[in-house]
Amino acid sequence: MTNLRTPLASLSDGDLAGFLAEQQQAYAALQERHLKLDLTRGKPSAAQLDLADALLHLPTGTTDRAGVDVRNYGGLEGLAELREIFAELLWVEPSQVVAGGNSSLSMMYATIVDFLLFGGVDSPRPWSQEETVRFVCPVPGYDRHFSMLAELGIEMVTVEMHDDGPDVAAVEALVKDDPSIKGIWIVPTYANPSGAVVSQEVAARLAAMPAAAPDFTIFWDNAYAFHHLTEDEAKSADILSLAAASGHPNRPIMFASTSKITFAGAGVAVLAASAANVAWYLRHLSMGSIGPDKVNHLRHVEFFHDAAGVRAHMRRHRDIIAPKFAAVDEALTEGLGGLEVAEWTHPTGGYFVNLDVLDGTASRVVALAKAAGIALTPAGASFPHGDDPRDRNIRLAPTFPVLDEVRTAMAGVATCVALAAAEKLVADREGGSAARVGAEGDDATA
Amino acid sequence: MTNLRTPLASLSDGDLAGFLAEQQQAYAALQERHLKLDLTRGKPSAAQLDLADALLHLPTGTTDRAGVDVRNYGGLEGLAELREIFAELLWVEPSQVVAGGNSSLSMMYATIVDFLLFGGVDSPRPWSQEETVRFVCPVPGYDRHFSMLAELGIEMVTVEMHDDGPDVAAVEALVKDDPSIKGIWIVPTYANPSGAVVSQEVAARLAAMPAAAPDFTIFWDNAYAFHHLTEDEAKSADILSLAAASGHPNRPIMFASTSKITFAGAGVAVLAASAANVAWYLRHLSMGSIGPDKVNHLRHVEFFHDAAGVRAHMRRHRDIIAPKFAAVDEALTEGLGGLEVAEWTHPTGGYFVNLDVLDGTASRVVALAKAAGIALTPAGASFPHGDDPRDRNIRLAPTFPVLDEVRTAMAGVATCVALAAAEKLVADREGGSAARVGAEGDDATA
Repeated sequence: MTNLRTPLASLSDGDLAGFLAEQQQAYAALQERHLKLDLTRGKPSAAQLDLADALLHLPTGTTDRAGVDVRNYGGLEGLAELREIFAELLWVEPSQVVAGGNSSLSMMYATIVDFLLFGGVDSPRPWSQEETVRFVCPVPGYDRHFSMLAELGIEMVTVEMHDDGPDVAAVEALVKDDPSIKGIWIVPTYANPSGAVVSQEVAARLAAMPAAAPDFTIFWDNAYAFHHLTEDEAKSADILSLAAASGHPNRPIMFASTSKITFAGAGVAVLAASAANVAWYLRHLSMGSIGPDKVNHLRHVEFFHDAAGVRAHMRRHRDIIAPKFAAVDEALTEGLGGLEVAEWTHPTGGYFVNLDVLDGTASRVVALAKAAGIALTPAGASFPHGDDPRDRNIRLAPTFPVLDEVRTAMAGVATCVALAAAEKLVADREGGSAARVGAEGDDATA
Repeated sequence: MTNLRTPLASLSDGDLAGFLAEQQQAYAALQERHLKLDLTRGKPSAAQLDLADALLHLPTGTTDRAGVDVRNYGGLEGLAELREIFAELLWVEPSQVVAGGNSSLSMMYATIVDFLLFGGVDSPRPWSQEETVRFVCPVPGYDRHFSMLAELGIEMVTVEMHDDGPDVAAVEALVKDDPSIKGIWIVPTYANPSGAVVSQEVAARLAAMPAAAPDFTIFWDNAYAFHHLTEDEAKSADILSLAAASGHPNRPIMFASTSKITFAGAGVAVLAASAANVAWYLRHLSMGSIGPDKVNHLRHVEFFHDAAGVRAHMRRHRDIIAPKFAAVDEALTEGLGGLEVAEWTHPTGGYFVNLDVLDGTASRVVALAKAAGIALTPAGASFPHGDDPRDRNIRLAPTFPVLDEVRTAMAGVATCVALAAAEKLVADREGGSAARVGAEGDDATA
């Protein structure tokens, strides 16, 4: 969509004041509507959940194909037939897959706790006995990855997320000489929130790079591996094979789940890793588990039948959510196109649109939206400790509301972005020429 | 059942040799039968699991009574209506209950990990920063309680389990002056494996006793709270109220589950504690959880309806398993009555019979049984590190096999016990009069 509007920063003081007044009027009208809309979290909508309602009447059987009663205790590694489906989807061997409970986040947490309390396969000692443990965190990234590390006393070092994955040169430089850097978070496919897909080249470099810590671990959170928004379906890099071929078989641990495939609260999560890592994980898991919910495993196996069943199911999700992503783009283009006060992503998969607004205005946009009844993820949420140094990043999650609500909410968000930008530019100019020069020097719309 | 046989130790050398030969013959005949029976674990039988098969077609709805979609994320504390059912069953307030995943063992593990990494509500520091952390472990006890502590580097101090609970005077003495003692395991109702029920008086003393550690915690694993074998249904002491009334509101943390009520692998577990403890648990849980499987919560609510539904369901379990416990008693009485080489419990609930054989023969009995195709829990399993100092304790778990198999297996076990005892007594006598006197001095049948 072409937009002929003038960049906001290039308006005369008078035109800018006029624009500000227009946006203030538009915002007042927005508030009059008393909206109550929520774009905060990457949650499936009711219509998406409905796609899996057949699960409510499954399983029809009570034994797995080996004849084991799924209702009883045991089977720590999960149902073989479910592990096979995920092995095919994730390009690994079934023996490399552990099927767990309803949350891959819980498996990540358990894994890091195991590293802290016991150390990993290649650890010289438990991480809790290290003076400092640090993780590389590509930003913007997933807020719960960061809050988990903060909770566990692990320091975070940020690198930029690029279109092909984390800034791999920066990662290599950090990891090479610093043995306190023990891990990195990666959402390799349709990253949260940027939508970026880690390229083969970046994945290969992450797998092969020298690391000062012998137990440096890539936490490969493939939450959106199958969550395509177009027919151009991204292939996740085969990180386990790449790492094994580079002599670092235990470096990556992969996570995935059906939380955004079947039921967000009642799906199944999986972990995939080297044989040694799987044995390590299961050994510690056995101390605090009586086995996963195998009835839910069988329920999912009967529902999907096979990997092709998962892929087909994901196309039904796409039909529901792709229009919502299109609506986000339309509303932002309509409201902000040409103003050069915001940039946003056009993801081909995943659950988020990453919106970068004028530096220093993200918090204001979120506050304005909130006061107009539109809940957005807190500004800065995609950065460690919620601290976005440029205060410009906003994560939009359009899947949960119905399509009309997405349109309404995003038109409102565009108004808030434009209003906050106009306020900022006016304030900067009123702050005198020094402030103005400074503002002009910023890469405000990067 | 009266038994007129002569105590084995009082037989003449010749009669003892004759008895040994008889048992050797009986054992050879046992081996000829090529049995394959398993009394190792406290697992529900298929018939018990069948009682809950209606769960396979539930829930019929997808929202809780507050209108929240149970299929989606969230609701960390669990479905309100399920927490209410357990609150009534456990004599606590719904706000004191957290409903979790399929395993109370996982909740216990998570709780201890939280104490280690963060410290509890009343902890001066995380337990991992203490030089030594020790738990009081009543013996015989639950093997997985002990292996969990061993895994986490927590030392174990044993006290004897009596008919009314742990030797409370011994516990008081240990806890009073030693701040390194941070916890105690208690299975208060139909204990694993002794079947003992903690009396009101013992519970009150545990709740009130002075403890050197301000964060001394009672891990009150009420796994068998509703698992009665007779109409004389034991009431669990109200440990939370007792502790609160004694000024130690945060001392007890209670655990329970439906693992032996509905499906052992696909039930729901709960934790109950003071408001401060619940808030503490949820705060840490939130870092690694997207909420419990609320569909399974709703499934259980629809299945039970209310607390009375749980109690009624447990009577159906009783009908299936009480005859198995009777069969254990009959077989042991028939095979060993009057010989004074074994004592066993007559539990009125729970999942186990505790069998104490002649000192120094438990390992031999288990080995003999194994060689005859009868799998028993390893000797010593009910002691920390698997070390029964008297080598006399065997845990029998009769619920899983069908009734006929229980009869067959237990007749075989009786043969193994008698054979091992005869072997031991003959060997002791052959070892000379000193050994014989020593053996007679032992409390061999205590």
